[in-house]
Amino acid sequence: MRIAILAHEKFPHRAKTALGVLRYTDDEVVAVLDRNNPGRRVTEFVPDVRDAPIVESMAELVDHDHGRGRDQDRNQDIDALLIGISPIGGAFDESWREDVRTALEAGCDVISGLHYFLGEDEEFAALAADHGCETRDVREPPEGLSVSQGIADEVSAEVVLTVGTDCSVGKLTTTMELARAAQEAGHDAAVIPTGQTGIMIEGWGNPIDRVVSDFTAGAVEEMILERGDEHDYLFVEGQGSIVHPAYSGVTAGILHGSMPDRLVLCHTAGTEVIHGYESFALPPIERYVEQYESFAEPVRETEVVAGALNTADLESDADARASLDEFATAIDGPATDVIRFGTDEILDAVI
Amino acid sequence: MRIAILAHEKFPHRAKTALGVLRYTDDEVVAVLDRNNPGRRVTEFVPDVRDAPIVESMAELVDHDHGRGRDQDRNQDIDALLIGISPIGGAFDESWREDVRTALEAGCDVISGLHYFLGEDEEFAALAADHGCETRDVREPPEGLSVSQGIADEVSAEVVLTVGTDCSVGKLTTTMELARAAQEAGHDAAVIPTGQTGIMIEGWGNPIDRVVSDFTAGAVEEMILERGDEHDYLFVEGQGSIVHPAYSGVTAGILHGSMPDRLVLCHTAGTEVIHGYESFALPPIERYVEQYESFAEPVRETEVVAGALNTADLESDADARASLDEFATAIDGPATDVIRFGTDEILDAVI
Repeated sequence: MRIAILAHEKFPHRAKTALGVLRYTDDEVVAVLDRNNPGRRVTEFVPDVRDAPIVESMAELVDHDHGRGRDQDRNQDIDALLIGISPIGGAFDESWREDVRTALEAGCDVISGLHYFLGEDEEFAALAADHGCETRDVREPPEGLSVSQGIADEVSAEVVLTVGTDCSVGKLTTTMELARAAQEAGHDAAVIPTGQTGIMIEGWGNPIDRVVSDFTAGAVEEMILERGDEHDYLFVEGQGSIVHPAYSGVTAGILHGSMPDRLVLCHTAGTEVIHGYESFALPPIERYVEQYESFAEPVRETEVVAGALNTADLESDADARASLDEFATAIDGPATDVIRFGTDEILDAVI
Repeated sequence: MRIAILAHEKFPHRAKTALGVLRYTDDEVVAVLDRNNPGRRVTEFVPDVRDAPIVESMAELVDHDHGRGRDQDRNQDIDALLIGISPIGGAFDESWREDVRTALEAGCDVISGLHYFLGEDEEFAALAADHGCETRDVREPPEGLSVSQGIADEVSAEVVLTVGTDCSVGKLTTTMELARAAQEAGHDAAVIPTGQTGIMIEGWGNPIDRVVSDFTAGAVEEMILERGDEHDYLFVEGQGSIVHPAYSGVTAGILHGSMPDRLVLCHTAGTEVIHGYESFALPPIERYVEQYESFAEPVRETEVVAGALNTADLESDADARASLDEFATAIDGPATDVIRFGTDEILDAVI
């Protein structure tokens, strides 16, 4: 599939869906849309993901004459426009409307992980119908979810869950890197995607933060029961944080629903407050370890066995190493930056 | 309003919506439907709620001739049939269909707190339209909910949240009794209903276990912000339990979203395992206190200040008192059975 990724004004670091897809998709990325940086390239901002040109709008990528009697699907053979931003609350930004409209008019599908479902937008639904393409809302949960039975621990796979000190601290990245490293080491490992970016990358999964709250744990359990006897390891993408004022319910449901054998704590070096909720200080790392383990324990005894620290804001490797040492001491286990230093230092502890 | 309450085969103790409404509604209860106990009366089973006859079916309550040309609304002037059972998963039991059908054909509204929405059932929707009545699904969340802002502590009211060792341990009852006792003591107190029974009793509220999981905390916060400057005390109905394999996400969201000043721990004397999840043992009471307080703390420092113990299964008051003493020691605070002994012993600690 050939895709374009919309990331206006948020690229790279506040467009985590865009970044996740750029890092892990098997699709071909034709361009990133960012009206703040037209003419530049992805790797000028983020070195270690696949490169693509940055353009101002969808109009640059499709045939401008399509409205004047020529074939409507004569664009640069782009199959889909993907919304690469996940704002708090999941709302649609009206400044994106023209790009979505242009994509649909050119016959491109539009893939979105927003809480706002494009399929329920009258204009987009009509355009998709008129132009033989579709809107795909990956955050729309499937039918038939229900409450957890408390039996995820019955599968034969070992279950490893990433947990975090906050949102956007690398839980998806750590999950993907560990699963790939386990596969490369000869293990049969799979990812259990729980959020829009993971679902876009893996092509399946339940968007846990969007399910009925009573079914939070059940929607994770369902996926583990479905895949857990087919693999030796399941790497479950965690969400939110157990101390988050808004999202702790999702985190709690995933922690109990997945009944994990082991936890990997993810954190961004140097952060001190909850992003977007700056009046809430992050507790000490030791406290997170204790909180995650003691919260899980009545349902499933588990342990933080390793740490994944995002050190991208630290320029020197020496500083990153110092920061990692401190983090490893706090969690009393091995730690790495899975992007900067790879997963070798923690893989043995995790599998 | 004159209502009938459906509680087939579950009355009284597995029909907690029926019991809650019988205890606290201002409506007139014409009858309870329970095909296991026709001809008996509510107070033969539960002494301390409003009495009503028990009948076998809705057909006994409405004019049997209504289908043969007579006025379709000639029933015993019943305004609504209320579904008084909340099964795990919230499914509709097909054995109830005939009663719902009969009610709608007689022009009665049907009020339900099930996850299964009666309004989306084609037969019921058609019958309601034909007979000028309506189905009311109180578990259908309102539009416009969103994520928590983490500001529930800014309201002027003191916020008291009931938390529990399990589901069905008296959180609604304790909330209602404490709010009424506070009012009787001259305080301006209100209830924040978070579940179907509370919403049926109070006539408003967000069904937290049914909202999008990302909005769990936000849906509680919204209610507290709406009412929190109009009253001196808000009594928030808690849900589930922080150790529940299926529902802990809902509990966690309410705990962080409500940012409570004080917690009241509810428990049923003598229970040792999670209801419906019997492989999970209840932790010691001391552990619950620690777990609730430490979970809340990064968002809002709070304390379990009192306990509410359901001692209905203990015949003698002496046994109940002994059980209460043990519970009070475990929580290191005053405890009562709010139904058996009233709220006097804990009210001072709570407000």
